[in-house]
Amino acid sequence: MVADLMSDRRALARLITQIENGAPEARQLVTRLYRRGGRAHIVGVTGAPGCGKSTLVAALARQLRVHAPDAHVAIIAVDPSSAFSGGAILGDRLRMRSLAGDAGVFIRSMASRGALGGVAAATADVVEVLDAVGFGTIFIETVGAGQLEVDVARIAQTVVVVEAPGAGDEVQAIKAGILEIADVVVVNKADREGATQTVAALQSALDIGRPMPAAGLHAIDPSHHLQAPEQPGPSAEWRPPILKTVASHEEGIAAVIAALEEHRQHLQLSGAGARRRARAVEQDVRARLGDLLLRRALRAVPQTHYNALIAGVIERTLHPLEAAEQLFIASWGQ
Amino acid sequence: MVADLMSDRRALARLITQIENGAPEARQLVTRLYRRGGRAHIVGVTGAPGCGKSTLVAALARQLRVHAPDAHVAIIAVDPSSAFSGGAILGDRLRMRSLAGDAGVFIRSMASRGALGGVAAATADVVEVLDAVGFGTIFIETVGAGQLEVDVARIAQTVVVVEAPGAGDEVQAIKAGILEIADVVVVNKADREGATQTVAALQSALDIGRPMPAAGLHAIDPSHHLQAPEQPGPSAEWRPPILKTVASHEEGIAAVIAALEEHRQHLQLSGAGARRRARAVEQDVRARLGDLLLRRALRAVPQTHYNALIAGVIERTLHPLEAAEQLFIASWGQ
Repeated sequence: MVADLMSDRRALARLITQIENGAPEARQLVTRLYRRGGRAHIVGVTGAPGCGKSTLVAALARQLRVHAPDAHVAIIAVDPSSAFSGGAILGDRLRMRSLAGDAGVFIRSMASRGALGGVAAATADVVEVLDAVGFGTIFIETVGAGQLEVDVARIAQTVVVVEAPGAGDEVQAIKAGILEIADVVVVNKADREGATQTVAALQSALDIGRPMPAAGLHAIDPSHHLQAPEQPGPSAEWRPPILKTVASHEEGIAAVIAALEEHRQHLQLSGAGARRRARAVEQDVRARLGDLLLRRALRAVPQTHYNALIAGVIERTLHPLEAAEQLFIASWGQ
Repeated sequence: MVADLMSDRRALARLITQIENGAPEARQLVTRLYRRGGRAHIVGVTGAPGCGKSTLVAALARQLRVHAPDAHVAIIAVDPSSAFSGGAILGDRLRMRSLAGDAGVFIRSMASRGALGGVAAATADVVEVLDAVGFGTIFIETVGAGQLEVDVARIAQTVVVVEAPGAGDEVQAIKAGILEIADVVVVNKADREGATQTVAALQSALDIGRPMPAAGLHAIDPSHHLQAPEQPGPSAEWRPPILKTVASHEEGIAAVIAALEEHRQHLQLSGAGARRRARAVEQDVRARLGDLLLRRALRAVPQTHYNALIAGVIERTLHPLEAAEQLFIASWGQ
């Protein structure tokens, strides 16, 4: 069955659609597949619109396939679900067309809104399925800033934050507050003017944000980082390298792949990977528990009582928390 | 007491900090103040980093104050909470310095992560307090894309999406999928090259996304929109105007203020405001109920049982949903 899903991409795509829709048929299979997962490298890739994320992910996938033709690669593009974004998404998909002939690469868009049980749970389930089915590397690509990135950072083992040199002095990853979730920082479109300043701005932001000073850190030299696994203590601090790429010309891609692999080794050797996974599991279980509780509570409260409380809040005779407390008592009791 | 908070800005700032921290002392006052709210115009302003949101909001506040010196204005800047973003936030605050001497303007930053009970609940409570205290217009400024914007769109009555002309052909609001929440679209930095193309791209994206065709719509002409309230049917469709500004030179600001006021009138006349508020209240109450239920459930489950289930998921003998279901049974029973 699992082998079927790797070769039968239609069946795989159908299962993913079922997961997105919260279809009960999918559940048993998803639950069973979960037991077989845990081998894939799950890489989140995020950055502002226009930084070239899709091109970078396509280039990474292509080179991974060249270096290890037996290792299959999956790409999940989490798109803001919107009638308006149709054109932009189409553009991204066109950029990935070069991968389309390769049966070892699976590409899938997922809507970021409206998924039953939330994006995070649906994305997590899809990633687990791809993992169990045998994909060696799974990229999750998301736009921008916000809670979604935090959720994806929880699912991913390694987070790549992508920045393009800006016209002004603004570094979007810093302004959007996503640098703190970065394990690897990529300055893409590095042939553009301003790339050096962007690297410097990112470096000083990282130096401020991290507990350890930057003395002796050769941030832009990936070879330095490649030496690190030689003698890492179990509690060795990971310092996100800043790497330059021109993804459209496939320049700098090998260094990013090396950094991803190095980070994966760091997670295993330092124990940071196990801690990260334990946190992620706990948050996932709690979110799903909250969902179950809320559904049960809403079923337990008579509709007229519910409507009266909501009306009270709308008319401002009740604060939303007071209404929630009364619903809590009505459903679960004191 | 309420009048005190308007004149005693230190007490107001202290109350907001208590709300952010989830301090129980704040609760009674917040609950009481909620009954007095409902008069302010709550305006969300969002857009990618670098589009000039802060400058625009500052210019809007300044002109509102000139036109109506008795109407106080509050600005809440929801910042991605991050050690890295310190510099950028400082920059924004410096841009607002021109407002600092005006006692009729209250400016406050709020962290977007780590707030107890979520950003949305804390921001909603702060907005309610500012409303009850007597601020006539409350701006909520957020960066970018993602769930946060959706949450803020729920709190706000009118959402302004800001775009700056890009270097390339990318329109960030479209790519990030936030155009669908826009009530008013502003192309700021409109003296830059590419402004006309950006307006055109936004216009065609709006034409695609909206159910009604754009025939006869003079989108960039605010005077057209100002005539609309003369004869709107109760179910009249709102068409987001696209307005050009150069906020740093205070150009185009009056047209934005007119559009905000026009949208507010539309919400009242068409009934759309009441529907929007009913939806927002219901979601707010449900989120707070979910929070209460989850806390109670986690208290009800013995720690050893909880730990065993989490360990089972980590070791992949249980799917997260299976663990959640067992916790549900252990806490609430069948």
